[in-house]
Amino acid sequence: MSDRLRPESDPTLAASAAELLSALRGAPPLTHCITNSVVTGFTANVLLALGAAPAMVDIVDEAGLFAGVASGMLMNLGTPTPEQRAASREAVAGATASGTPWVLDPVAIGVLPVRTALAQELAAARPTAIRGNASEILALAGQSAGGRGVDATDATDAAADAAIALAARHGAVVAVSGPVDLITDGRRVIRLANGDELLTRVTGGGCALGAVMAAFLGAARVGGVDPLTAVAAATLVYTVAAEHAAAQASGPGSFAVAFLDALAAIQPHDLAPAARVEERAL
Amino acid sequence: MSDRLRPESDPTLAASAAELLSALRGAPPLTHCITNSVVTGFTANVLLALGAAPAMVDIVDEAGLFAGVASGMLMNLGTPTPEQRAASREAVAGATASGTPWVLDPVAIGVLPVRTALAQELAAARPTAIRGNASEILALAGQSAGGRGVDATDATDAAADAAIALAARHGAVVAVSGPVDLITDGRRVIRLANGDELLTRVTGGGCALGAVMAAFLGAARVGGVDPLTAVAAATLVYTVAAEHAAAQASGPGSFAVAFLDALAAIQPHDLAPAARVEERAL
Amino acid sequence: MSDRLRPESDPTLAASAAELLSALRGAPPLTHCITNSVVTGFTANVLLALGAAPAMVDIVDEAGLFAGVASGMLMNLGTPTPEQRAASREAVAGATASGTPWVLDPVAIGVLPVRTALAQELAAARPTAIRGNASEILALAGQSAGGRGVDATDATDAAADAAIALAARHGAVVAVSGPVDLITDGRRVIRLANGDELLTRVTGGGCALGAVMAAFLGAARVGGVDPLTAVAAATLVYTVAAEHAAAQASGPGSFAVAFLDALAAIQPHDLAPAARVEERAL
Repeated sequence: MSDRLRPESDPTLAASAAELLSALRGAPPLTHCITNSVVTGFTANVLLALGAAPAMVDIVDEAGLFAGVASGMLMNLGTPTPEQRAASREAVAGATASGTPWVLDPVAIGVLPVRTALAQELAAARPTAIRGNASEILALAGQSAGGRGVDATDATDAAADAAIALAARHGAVVAVSGPVDLITDGRRVIRLANGDELLTRVTGGGCALGAVMAAFLGAARVGGVDPLTAVAAATLVYTVAAEHAAAQASGPGSFAVAFLDALAAIQPHDLAPAARVEERAL
Repeated sequence: MSDRLRPESDPTLAASAAELLSALRGAPPLTHCITNSVVTGFTANVLLALGAAPAMVDIVDEAGLFAGVASGMLMNLGTPTPEQRAASREAVAGATASGTPWVLDPVAIGVLPVRTALAQELAAARPTAIRGNASEILALAGQSAGGRGVDATDATDAAADAAIALAARHGAVVAVSGPVDLITDGRRVIRLANGDELLTRVTGGGCALGAVMAAFLGAARVGGVDPLTAVAAATLVYTVAAEHAAAQASGPGSFAVAFLDALAAIQPHDLAPAARVEERAL
Repeated sequence: MSDRLRPESDPTLAASAAELLSALRGAPPLTHCITNSVVTGFTANVLLALGAAPAMVDIVDEAGLFAGVASGMLMNLGTPTPEQRAASREAVAGATASGTPWVLDPVAIGVLPVRTALAQELAAARPTAIRGNASEILALAGQSAGGRGVDATDATDAAADAAIALAARHGAVVAVSGPVDLITDGRRVIRLANGDELLTRVTGGGCALGAVMAAFLGAARVGGVDPLTAVAAATLVYTVAAEHAAAQASGPGSFAVAFLDALAAIQPHDLAPAARVEERAL
């Protein structure tokens, strides 16, 4: 986390996140997930713990219909079987026709050709939000990560320009996950410095955040809240819950358990005191 | 839970459940599961914790053969890929030929067309038991749930007539899961009021119960116990273990962990004092 | 555990395992897993906890390429869909072309025809290591397990000749998992008596060990350590961590959580005092 984020907070975002969290629990958004086989269970448990209603519908002749009735949709490309690839196109068409907000998570694109091509195709279909780590966002923007290994904080900043360009190109909110999360709609940039390194030691730590963004987008649509705020609010709730969990954990196993408990226990009023957020216009 | 169930207990069912639990642990039933990608791991862990022997065999040219040698089989339609749909038909044929008892779990049928048609087809193949929530049982019976949202307790009772009709039509035990579980073979109705709301906050809370029913049906077949008793016994053991777990839990994450511990620790003599059961003939 | 193993230790193996564990954490091996749908999440979490970098890439047109860039690869046949079967052939070709060490886990072969044929085919493609329980190793060697049920310790010894023959035939290290783990390259035999019975009550307890072997083989290749030592080192680290976890656990649920914590916490210097290892030349 950069020092300049430590003392700051954005009362606006924390207040919006508190309202969206309350709204979500009052009317659980039906959250349609097409996601990878490694994290399906964890993702569903994250959504259930938070108070949303998950449904994993990833087969042809059901996915399109379901995306049309869902409150929000996640399209995660972690293990894109042929059936899921066909279902994803159906789901995106269904979401588009109904105005269902959806999140694209281009897992591990770059070297792997099948998902890279699919991610480019789906990005062009105007997702509401795109979430990835720095190298995935750089790859989707057509830029390669610079040089040798950089530490993860730097990586987020290294992807800032790519994220802004991608947001402008596709009309999407773009979220770069890392020690500092960067979220932009191409006009404003929000940086959040909450979270814990243990999130990277549990499979699905990033993937489930994409599902939570889809749930918040669903709640935000009902309340007329803009997607940038919804995506940032999802990130804030998720990463503050991670801090609560880390305080209880002895390692990655107990962290994952405590994280689900924390997502269920976190209250709207927990957010403002904990938030380490910076927002600026471009 | 309805008040009239609180002080009652059915010593007959608790005694049968105690015997079946001992029998299951003495000779672990090989429990064949064709289930959805969200809950496979949790389902296997539930069966292992309880003392059964799970095997997830869901591919063509293996599922039929395996259903023939298994003690019990679960057919759960949560993520019915084309491969699983073909394997399910094979497995049902194998189970039928060998007399292997099997459970149909028609997850999320109603709106979704692929699984709804498959559920109707498989229900007609005479499963030993059918397990679902109220809306799934109503949908399978060809009735739509009445009106606006009802609370879940009401929902169980709202599905009672559908469950009885479905049991009579298919010669199956039908179990409606909810705060009060209703189980019927079309002639008798058992209501169980054990369990905990946290079961609904963990993905697979219902799906894994279907697998436990398949394991108990396997143990019951060896001992000549009728399927209605086996399905109710499975439900009793499962929901009493859930109460033990809830007493230890701080939220859905720690509940899921404690539930596996409780399934491994629960003893036959724990059941009678805890059982909140009512049985009546129609 | 046999009594003769209790007081013994092999300082050579424990020292090698300590070095490999340090090496693995210093340069996390990219560990490519093609594995079954029941244990994908647990397997990824085991690798992450330990300090390796898992990637589940099991689709056609990506698996071969990825096996070529990975440090180690696991090919587990637990739920071999048609897509995975095609991807496995691609991955083995990619691993072979690049010299990526790989582990074959022939889950549940014997009765089930699709995986049995595939296991024979892949075994002939010269895996670096083969891991299974006694009955799987016996089946792969073309021998059937003798007679009625034997206890699991006996089973490991019953498979010793089959393991040695298999190692010689395929030029592979063969590991037979059980209360005593037996590992051989056809010239030497290592027996390890660490571990805990709770590993058998968690789904993926064996499957994830195969993934850890692939990670250690990746680290060993960099350091020029032989595959027999790498596979035995992986087993030692894994089973000593299981002992640490069992000391904390109240049942299979809490064991699985504590096991992930223990894999993250275990230190190189923990191994020598705990190791119960016997090695002999044939």
